[in-house]
Amino acid sequence: MTTMRALQYREFGARPEVVEIDRPVPGAGEVLLQMTASGACHSDEFIMSTPADQYVFAPLPLTLGHEGAGVVAELGPGTTGVEVGDSVLVYGPWGCGVCHSCAQGSENNCVHGISAPGIHRPGTMAEYMIVDDVRHLVPLGELDPIPSVSLTDAALTPYHAIKPSLPALIPGTTALVIGVGGLGHVGVQLLKALTQATIIAVDINQASISHALELGADHAFASDGDAAERIRELTGARGADVVFDFVGAEPTAALAQSTVAIAGQIVMVGVSTGAVPVGYLTLPFDVSVRVVNWGTRAELIEVVELARRGAIEIAVEEFAMDAAPDAYERLHAGQIRGRAVVVPTR
Amino acid sequence: MTTMRALQYREFGARPEVVEIDRPVPGAGEVLLQMTASGACHSDEFIMSTPADQYVFAPLPLTLGHEGAGVVAELGPGTTGVEVGDSVLVYGPWGCGVCHSCAQGSENNCVHGISAPGIHRPGTMAEYMIVDDVRHLVPLGELDPIPSVSLTDAALTPYHAIKPSLPALIPGTTALVIGVGGLGHVGVQLLKALTQATIIAVDINQASISHALELGADHAFASDGDAAERIRELTGARGADVVFDFVGAEPTAALAQSTVAIAGQIVMVGVSTGAVPVGYLTLPFDVSVRVVNWGTRAELIEVVELARRGAIEIAVEEFAMDAAPDAYERLHAGQIRGRAVVVPTR
Amino acid sequence: MTTMRALQYREFGARPEVVEIDRPVPGAGEVLLQMTASGACHSDEFIMSTPADQYVFAPLPLTLGHEGAGVVAELGPGTTGVEVGDSVLVYGPWGCGVCHSCAQGSENNCVHGISAPGIHRPGTMAEYMIVDDVRHLVPLGELDPIPSVSLTDAALTPYHAIKPSLPALIPGTTALVIGVGGLGHVGVQLLKALTQATIIAVDINQASISHALELGADHAFASDGDAAERIRELTGARGADVVFDFVGAEPTAALAQSTVAIAGQIVMVGVSTGAVPVGYLTLPFDVSVRVVNWGTRAELIEVVELARRGAIEIAVEEFAMDAAPDAYERLHAGQIRGRAVVVPTR
Amino acid sequence: MTTMRALQYREFGARPEVVEIDRPVPGAGEVLLQMTASGACHSDEFIMSTPADQYVFAPLPLTLGHEGAGVVAELGPGTTGVEVGDSVLVYGPWGCGVCHSCAQGSENNCVHGISAPGIHRPGTMAEYMIVDDVRHLVPLGELDPIPSVSLTDAALTPYHAIKPSLPALIPGTTALVIGVGGLGHVGVQLLKALTQATIIAVDINQASISHALELGADHAFASDGDAAERIRELTGARGADVVFDFVGAEPTAALAQSTVAIAGQIVMVGVSTGAVPVGYLTLPFDVSVRVVNWGTRAELIEVVELARRGAIEIAVEEFAMDAAPDAYERLHAGQIRGRAVVVPTR
Repeated sequence: MTTMRALQYREFGARPEVVEIDRPVPGAGEVLLQMTASGACHSDEFIMSTPADQYVFAPLPLTLGHEGAGVVAELGPGTTGVEVGDSVLVYGPWGCGVCHSCAQGSENNCVHGISAPGIHRPGTMAEYMIVDDVRHLVPLGELDPIPSVSLTDAALTPYHAIKPSLPALIPGTTALVIGVGGLGHVGVQLLKALTQATIIAVDINQASISHALELGADHAFASDGDAAERIRELTGARGADVVFDFVGAEPTAALAQSTVAIAGQIVMVGVSTGAVPVGYLTLPFDVSVRVVNWGTRAELIEVVELARRGAIEIAVEEFAMDAAPDAYERLHAGQIRGRAVVVPTR
Repeated sequence: MTTMRALQYREFGARPEVVEIDRPVPGAGEVLLQMTASGACHSDEFIMSTPADQYVFAPLPLTLGHEGAGVVAELGPGTTGVEVGDSVLVYGPWGCGVCHSCAQGSENNCVHGISAPGIHRPGTMAEYMIVDDVRHLVPLGELDPIPSVSLTDAALTPYHAIKPSLPALIPGTTALVIGVGGLGHVGVQLLKALTQATIIAVDINQASISHALELGADHAFASDGDAAERIRELTGARGADVVFDFVGAEPTAALAQSTVAIAGQIVMVGVSTGAVPVGYLTLPFDVSVRVVNWGTRAELIEVVELARRGAIEIAVEEFAMDAAPDAYERLHAGQIRGRAVVVPTR
Repeated sequence: MTTMRALQYREFGARPEVVEIDRPVPGAGEVLLQMTASGACHSDEFIMSTPADQYVFAPLPLTLGHEGAGVVAELGPGTTGVEVGDSVLVYGPWGCGVCHSCAQGSENNCVHGISAPGIHRPGTMAEYMIVDDVRHLVPLGELDPIPSVSLTDAALTPYHAIKPSLPALIPGTTALVIGVGGLGHVGVQLLKALTQATIIAVDINQASISHALELGADHAFASDGDAAERIRELTGARGADVVFDFVGAEPTAALAQSTVAIAGQIVMVGVSTGAVPVGYLTLPFDVSVRVVNWGTRAELIEVVELARRGAIEIAVEEFAMDAAPDAYERLHAGQIRGRAVVVPTR
Repeated sequence: MTTMRALQYREFGARPEVVEIDRPVPGAGEVLLQMTASGACHSDEFIMSTPADQYVFAPLPLTLGHEGAGVVAELGPGTTGVEVGDSVLVYGPWGCGVCHSCAQGSENNCVHGISAPGIHRPGTMAEYMIVDDVRHLVPLGELDPIPSVSLTDAALTPYHAIKPSLPALIPGTTALVIGVGGLGHVGVQLLKALTQATIIAVDINQASISHALELGADHAFASDGDAAERIRELTGARGADVVFDFVGAEPTAALAQSTVAIAGQIVMVGVSTGAVPVGYLTLPFDVSVRVVNWGTRAELIEVVELARRGAIEIAVEEFAMDAAPDAYERLHAGQIRGRAVVVPTR
């Protein structure tokens, strides 16, 4: 069999479709994976909702999916370092491997830009995919690929957001999590596992609020008009030392801006249109605000260790390949608890 | 003599005036200084231009000046740690001394707010002033107080802005300085002394551009419509790794936003109304933007060491007490090269 | 009543004695505490076992005790910032408050040396004591002073040892704790609370091994001749990324040296005669080894927050004042589980 | 021509010899370099003086040299990222590229151990050599390869030693450099370029002392019996905040131990038999001591930028291939000022 099924975005504005395409063959140094799982992400929606005249991603048709797990099926000429049959995760933001950023493993910030599966080249929502270099594979061992696949983004991105803030989240401080969805529900677990900060979570959705409390948030409530006031009360008027905005919309950015403490931090994670203005008159003294993007190779290895240890667990809903388009519809409607995962071979 | 001259802001909207007031007496733990120098700052102007209904500083009349140098004239009961005759600088942002921020010497971020001379209590523009605690004094030794007085803000603030960015300013990177005035001209020297980054400076004023080049900037030019383009060219399209905006106005914030590199930093130092919006769509990946406020006690000690070593030198214009109001007028008009310093006893 | 009971070391080589001495009166800026608890420490034994010709501490008689909790009984003239009746802990390593180290709150590293109660001046093992400055008090609030008093050293010291190593203790790494006594049993809890590292604990005492497992160590076993081999096995031959030696004797230092991983760290905490030789031929590449001393003011505030949150709990055995000499004998014999605490008013 | 000249260590205890051997052919992903320069290092001597029964390096005959510069002569199948004719440096400590250390670019600390040219595989002292992966090449551009070749170790190693200490070398501190030879003379320049610390250099050799002063040391003198005393005097009895021991012998380690300041650092760089004992009784409080090994890929890129900027310049003596054995003799005799560089094609 030299063809395979893949989920593709084929026409601007249309729904993605499951199609039969050629199965790729690995070149020198490359690896062919048979996919065991593929995660559906809000940023796929962002791609599919970008108007044609602003579209900067791979030409259509585009095989979707930047979260991938698979089993090594075939090695290209000269490829070493993995064995056929190894269960692996795919590190997504592929860089040049040589520039100063890549030399530190920050391929997500490659000075030549990244080339990511499902965004700039064929993605993970297919029965098979090509990975360009063994350095983009992280061994999964005995971990179940279906709940693990989203470690590659839904856990890596919040980890990349939280890790630089750990030195600020000393005992006695407060972390505010805005939005407890696919990324935010992992964010709560990471904060619980790696800090003794007080964790406050807010969301517009009652199920997400409950989810946050189950996952260990100290306080969770609606992100309504009273939220800022309650956060001030819970922090002795000080505000939150670090605010993670996993939504990134105008109202959540405004909540972040109004609740951050002096010398605090705001981390904008969500892919949306909100922004926090940073200037002398807009924030308490010595506050910093940053945007984040995915994560580094080393961070993905660390995230897998956290999963192995049971410190984080991603809530997933499984979908067979034929149901993949539905996964995106339910994701868009805010009906997924945690993360939607497609099993390409099902 | 139990009276002394002081420069006071006495009436909303009016010019500051030199007046004769009572000379203060030091209480327990306090120190009376005879002032040797006092710096005039843009933020004094900010105070004097704040409308009465938004005014949050000390009630009028307010003795101005938050940059101060003096000689210890008298010790209050129980005061130890300095001697009458010692030449000292005044650390400005006085905190409670006990909270977690103050326990780390970050009194500028005291959780109870700061109480600063010339802002929240009587300032340095007088023949004498009270300092509440010896910990707010830094020994000056043989250094000349007149050029040194502005170390307490015009050097401390840029140092506080630059120090956290030093790890990012590794060899091969670029620092962009926007605005080469009272603070910016020290910023250029600090970057020159403490990094091997390429330094680009921009200003609207030709004299400031020349000043930047004299002080060691690798490139300096007008911050006009072509500036962003030139910065891109000089950095191989990458942009500046750290941008210091010493102006903080709308156009300078916009220049910072459009020239920062991926994973770079923007530091908003200037006291004005500009702001950089931070969100998913507004900046390259992994950029952080922060506001800064003055500096810590330890940083002031470090800044004095830099001056002692000759690594920084503050350009100053001296004014006798009677000319202090003029100093502010010339400052407002952008006619001061470096910093305006008043000698209260002259 | 103007006298009080105190435990004093009065004669070289003799046991400490409970004696009746004058109750002190607070001077300007000082605070008189009525003591609620005082911890007994191995380093008190170190003082009492130092030969007269090597003795560098306060002249005898010396009121012992550098761990103290009390209630504010009286304020000296001009003292502000606490109220009579406040329950507080005493921060022990008093520095000058002004030098660069103290300006950062690292009074434990004061460039003029520290002056600590119970070591260089009258200590906490008395019904009353003088604290020189309110900055050396940390509010205890509703926390019980008896189990809390040892936060000031038995928790602060391991926290100071562990905090700089937190960035190295990323997921997937291993922390080795050697010695699970007064400090080590807190070290295990701190590692559990603040990291997701695998925790291995070793001790010569079976009760301490069991204690380590109860407190959350992943593995605990005898520090015998097989220990190094077992640690290698548990870490896939890599060794421990950070080794905390809470004993500091020759055999424990040797175990640390033989089990540290490449680019790892060894932290020597215990007060004893062991040492790790650091040179090109003695350790894996890029290893660092450090000695630690007590902690900073900010760290004590953080440690109190951890106790408030329930993240650490110090096992204590209580002793009335008359039994204080016995506490030291039992401590010396290794018969205390956790920490020995004297209640001076009992 | 399919043979080439190479300098090989062929027999235990014998001098290295220039021999004619087969010119290698690049495999998939590999690069063939025509060498433009190769540095001679004390650690080559260390290899050649290791007794046969302790020898752990590549089997003899071993082509020497781990510092290399060359021009790309031929690309193996599938190799991309460099062009024939590019002038490059060879990054020496080759790791697996995949483990957590390598994922951060710390190939020098690869968990599987390093494989370095001239140590574990054929080295740079030949007319041609194979580099296994383009990530081990750093572009040299217009820089002259002869003085630049030693950037790969004689500059990279001190940079790796100094970079983690930069946050400690704030204004007002002192750096002590012990040994101003091949690595130490670069260390002085790096400290001068990247800090405002006071630099004290000591050496047993008068020419090296003079060299240190020319390169910008604030003080330089003989490392004799008075050295510790003079260092104490120059630092106001405090000692040196960071000590770099570029020799690593017993007397230099002892000097480091006796002159380090409280909370200071000692960095053991030299490849010799000295060691600093680290324990409660051996050093001031909170001191850390570390050993270092070569450097990371990103650090080599940074070092090249420093050379490009003129901030460091390596003093070299050139040798033609036939004179390479003499280079090692003169190096051993301490007669080289700076670094000995062999030009393999001469």
